[in-house]
Amino acid sequence: MGNKAKWLWYPGDYETALFNKCMAERHERDVLITPFWRMDSHYVTVKFYSDFTLTKPNDITIKVDGSFNIYIEGIGYIYDFTGVLKLPAGEYHMQILVNNVAQLPCIYVDGEELKSSSQTFRVTCQDDVFYPAAEGKFDDPDISPNKKVKREKEVFPVSVQNTDKGVLYDFGQEISARLSVEGCEIGTTFVCYYGESLDEVFDERHCEQLDRVEVKESVIETSVTKAFRYLLIKKDTHYEKITILSEVSEVENKGYFKSNDKLLEQIYDVSIHTLDMCKKDFFLDGAKRDRWAWSGDAYQSYLVNYYSFCDDETVKRTIIALKGKEPIKTHINHIMDYTMYWILSLYDYLNYGGDKSFIAEIYDSAKGYVDFLLNRRNDDGLLYNLPNDWVFIDWADMDNRGETSFEQILFVETLKRFGEITRIVGKGDGALYDEIANELLSKTIEVFWKDGRFVHARTDGKLQNKVTRYANMFAVMFDLLDEEKTKSVIDNVLLNDDVQQITTPYMRFYEQVTLSKIASEQNIVAEIEKYWGGMLNEGATTFWEAYDPKETGKEKYAMYGRPYGKSLCHAWGANPIYLIFNCILGIKPLCVGYELFICKPKLWMMPDFECVCPIGKGKLHIFYDKTNFSIRAENGNGYLEMPEDFLLCGNADIEGSKYIIHDGEELSFIKKEG
Amino acid sequence: MGNKAKWLWYPGDYETALFNKCMAERHERDVLITPFWRMDSHYVTVKFYSDFTLTKPNDITIKVDGSFNIYIEGIGYIYDFTGVLKLPAGEYHMQILVNNVAQLPCIYVDGEELKSSSQTFRVTCQDDVFYPAAEGKFDDPDISPNKKVKREKEVFPVSVQNTDKGVLYDFGQEISARLSVEGCEIGTTFVCYYGESLDEVFDERHCEQLDRVEVKESVIETSVTKAFRYLLIKKDTHYEKITILSEVSEVENKGYFKSNDKLLEQIYDVSIHTLDMCKKDFFLDGAKRDRWAWSGDAYQSYLVNYYSFCDDETVKRTIIALKGKEPIKTHINHIMDYTMYWILSLYDYLNYGGDKSFIAEIYDSAKGYVDFLLNRRNDDGLLYNLPNDWVFIDWADMDNRGETSFEQILFVETLKRFGEITRIVGKGDGALYDEIANELLSKTIEVFWKDGRFVHARTDGKLQNKVTRYANMFAVMFDLLDEEKTKSVIDNVLLNDDVQQITTPYMRFYEQVTLSKIASEQNIVAEIEKYWGGMLNEGATTFWEAYDPKETGKEKYAMYGRPYGKSLCHAWGANPIYLIFNCILGIKPLCVGYELFICKPKLWMMPDFECVCPIGKGKLHIFYDKTNFSIRAENGNGYLEMPEDFLLCGNADIEGSKYIIHDGEELSFIKKEG
Repeated sequence: MGNKAKWLWYPGDYETALFNKCMAERHERDVLITPFWRMDSHYVTVKFYSDFTLTKPNDITIKVDGSFNIYIEGIGYIYDFTGVLKLPAGEYHMQILVNNVAQLPCIYVDGEELKSSSQTFRVTCQDDVFYPAAEGKFDDPDISPNKKVKREKEVFPVSVQNTDKGVLYDFGQEISARLSVEGCEIGTTFVCYYGESLDEVFDERHCEQLDRVEVKESVIETSVTKAFRYLLIKKDTHYEKITILSEVSEVENKGYFKSNDKLLEQIYDVSIHTLDMCKKDFFLDGAKRDRWAWSGDAYQSYLVNYYSFCDDETVKRTIIALKGKEPIKTHINHIMDYTMYWILSLYDYLNYGGDKSFIAEIYDSAKGYVDFLLNRRNDDGLLYNLPNDWVFIDWADMDNRGETSFEQILFVETLKRFGEITRIVGKGDGALYDEIANELLSKTIEVFWKDGRFVHARTDGKLQNKVTRYANMFAVMFDLLDEEKTKSVIDNVLLNDDVQQITTPYMRFYEQVTLSKIASEQNIVAEIEKYWGGMLNEGATTFWEAYDPKETGKEKYAMYGRPYGKSLCHAWGANPIYLIFNCILGIKPLCVGYELFICKPKLWMMPDFECVCPIGKGKLHIFYDKTNFSIRAENGNGYLEMPEDFLLCGNADIEGSKYIIHDGEELSFIKKEG
Repeated sequence: MGNKAKWLWYPGDYETALFNKCMAERHERDVLITPFWRMDSHYVTVKFYSDFTLTKPNDITIKVDGSFNIYIEGIGYIYDFTGVLKLPAGEYHMQILVNNVAQLPCIYVDGEELKSSSQTFRVTCQDDVFYPAAEGKFDDPDISPNKKVKREKEVFPVSVQNTDKGVLYDFGQEISARLSVEGCEIGTTFVCYYGESLDEVFDERHCEQLDRVEVKESVIETSVTKAFRYLLIKKDTHYEKITILSEVSEVENKGYFKSNDKLLEQIYDVSIHTLDMCKKDFFLDGAKRDRWAWSGDAYQSYLVNYYSFCDDETVKRTIIALKGKEPIKTHINHIMDYTMYWILSLYDYLNYGGDKSFIAEIYDSAKGYVDFLLNRRNDDGLLYNLPNDWVFIDWADMDNRGETSFEQILFVETLKRFGEITRIVGKGDGALYDEIANELLSKTIEVFWKDGRFVHARTDGKLQNKVTRYANMFAVMFDLLDEEKTKSVIDNVLLNDDVQQITTPYMRFYEQVTLSKIASEQNIVAEIEKYWGGMLNEGATTFWEAYDPKETGKEKYAMYGRPYGKSLCHAWGANPIYLIFNCILGIKPLCVGYELFICKPKLWMMPDFECVCPIGKGKLHIFYDKTNFSIRAENGNGYLEMPEDFLLCGNADIEGSKYIIHDGEELSFIKKEG
């Protein structure tokens, strides 16, 4: 009992309450824009239970957010409670009921022999189901989860200049920050504009973000961060001093990547900064717009996160928030594909080091979504576009009415992985899901396979002529096709420039992942430098929601019919981190919990580099300079599969064609001459 | 469009939010006691839609409780909104999204050609389901549903006296009130005790209600009403003036009952006062304790209400609140019987004049509860006592483990009435439910019928020896048995004093209803005067939760192991109103919506009286003085079936043995000589 007491709550409700707060931070100019899917509430009345024994008199401090009562069996309700419960030695069965509509109901209990924790308290929302109470990192009696304060630091502009529209601050790169302004004139209105680009900040009628504060005291503070590189304080606004308070991530990047190829290094750094900007209490899609948690976007962020921040708590928090509460009435984010990415994400969470117990806890909800999907198939057993369902796939020109081949392929993999999850968390053998997956794959091929590749969709019972990359590349990425069909897809689609090009980093990601699988001759590094490097050439300091190299000038900032609608700091832009570590250096978990890793680098396409790649709880240190390659695992074990033209220096254990990497040992290689 | 604009919200959420407030008003001394079942929350983000046409420019005032945005198709989000939307003539599709975690999200829209109402706005919680927005009586732009203020009036004590414990106020009868106290001494603590009885108010260590307010300003107000007859301001508490603010019901009793039998008249009046005290925003069980909405208690209150206040809005509100939200995980109030009373109440609501549309709206939830019950039967098809299910039946000495005959009988009637509801609201023919009901009845007789009556229960597979009145009287009340079995139950149970007596007005009610059906020689009036009159003899000014004539002295106030735990103002005590009008005067709806009534009075047991009995939207005026009987319907049509010894004066239409009563016409009768 030497541990510190923790604040406790109903499992999932901290995330639910925080999600409500976080989702109310998106604004378009002065307009609040909260999500368009059902937002659930925390349970307003919850009851905590503890059975405990005191060997001596204890003074037990009890703090509660909400109205509450304390009941002890044999004693009854505690009348006249003033904050400390004085109990003599004895055995106790205690209940604390908390009622709080506005905020998370939570408790903190601290006595010499009773400290609140998930071990000492159970909780129920009074539906006859009891769970260990949930706890987090809140152990300060004065700072409950409802009083959590974001970490901030002051940041400084790289330049300040007077313009005819007002004072312009340039921070050199995109930041996420709010303002504290001193010396304002009471009775006036403080007005400022934010811009991801110079064009945006000077366009006061169309810029996406602004603050307009009626000055009632000489110091004002804006409450919600904005994402911007440029800040313009409107002309004639009176103020004396401005402090820019930037949000500080609670979890830092655990890796790094340095190279003599400065472009690639910069792409890595900007990717990290992009994800950092979009990772708040949840993995959000964009820092400026729209600051919501979207399952398909978050899915990629989780993958990138496993190779950078390893912020598993935020992964869990996002998974819980996206799940929502019962009853399941719609797809996650209303998007068919996004429900499936949510299930895929559970499988990745297991592999990349997450604990099984969390997935076991939400297994029933996951099964609820799988059943929801299964129940929405048509008579052919295919998923189809029901009214109000959004089949997103990608921002691109295509017709997703009826049945799309992409959704079927994604569902095949979803079912297979859900079968795996079922096995891993011990809920059965999952064979049922494998079976349905196989049937669905056969049906998908029967319906959509034409001229050596998948057609995009069947609409109103008629096969479209259009072919897109999506179903084809996902089928290859997920290894769903036989050798002949795989080759056919590669030739007819993946390496065929006539098939509609992808213009979002989102799907460009899966394309690169797929290309990295199929043919070693594909130079992914070059592709990354071309596409992501293209954004840097356009002045990007964070990666964008969409990038079409053909767009130049102001049009590159437009989207959704608004001149600055495009998000210039979008989480899915950060995925070169995954491409470098997973696809090029071939670093992956070999089994659940990252107990073992594999590293299978494609060095021929790499410049000289030195890096640290997180592997679950450990790190992999790698050095390469075209002649020498060395690798060392810190807190990890695994295998290395080297290109044939490298020779081991010294000794190593070998298993088949793989070197065994023991924790802490360094292996060095030298390139064969020739 | 001449109507006033109304505040709008998501259907059911006004009730949900209000229920959370109301259920947090129960206190035991200084301890808050909220319900022990799952309390749900309003939806925190809802979106209102309106399609409308303006023929000229309109200035549209929009008021919202919560953060919000306004979006108009073709225009986009409305920036810089200051409260009034100025729109030119045209066709519009408008959305208003409202976000409010702490309170009910609601809107008020008022323009010359657009006024918010359930006709002009739809609403969704963003789960793809849309409803007409809900409205109530809130049409003041400055008083949203969240700002509703309770009506109050000042009441005065009948005596004030100084005692050695403090100043004692006696209000002559039980009231529900809070205090406003002037001239308090800042820095002191204002302490007062409340008592339903003199014993309670003077027992400062055990009285159930008190207020203890730290005086920070010279005027203090208590926030939550207490129910009491006596108030004791603690000795040495400094104050100058006290004002007692009593809650005023928004709906008044629509009937009356006057008689030369002053005891019966008093029983009627005290019953009305009792129900009035327990009817707040919801039908609560007791005014002092426990102030929760309990489905079985509320069921009786609804029935009494149909013969007194006709407050259908509070019936609906209580039905919605008790229903809760999806998913259904437990019985209503955790009590098996209470889920079934909830379904029965829907059937009554339809008959007593409620609109079908409300029942149609919640039909799916009702079906959810019927399915919940069906799924909790055992292999014999019988309901049984599952862990965490509470089989209540009554406060009495009995063993409800295993299967109780009472729950089966109640379920048979529940299924039959649900079949009826299904037919009435046009959701099918309901035959399935009749079929299951018949099977269950057969099984119940097979298992529990022994020696000419139902045995109480089968526990651990063995039939108990105990017989109670419950299953037996309900089977007769619901006409479930054939003539032979009915007679057997009457002789062996209902008229057999050796079978355990009932000591709560709750079940005493059903007993009297049943007795009134079976044999005209049962003098229900005498029984009412004996049992309810007994409480008046004990000094009751409102009727009690339980009354055992054998208990005298202070012990009569005790319950739940607390000396004043018994509620002396309990809604189910008010049921003589129903017994008089429904069971003795035989006034009942003959069809859905009270379109036709029947009146079949048992005059032989009645003293002289004059009364008005509400019949749906109308009233029935009756006069009787043993020789003369007259009856007149005001806003109603129906039938009269007179005892044979009364002769019609004048003419009347006749149908079979019944006189037809036309709206507004009076029929007079005179008793035959001899």
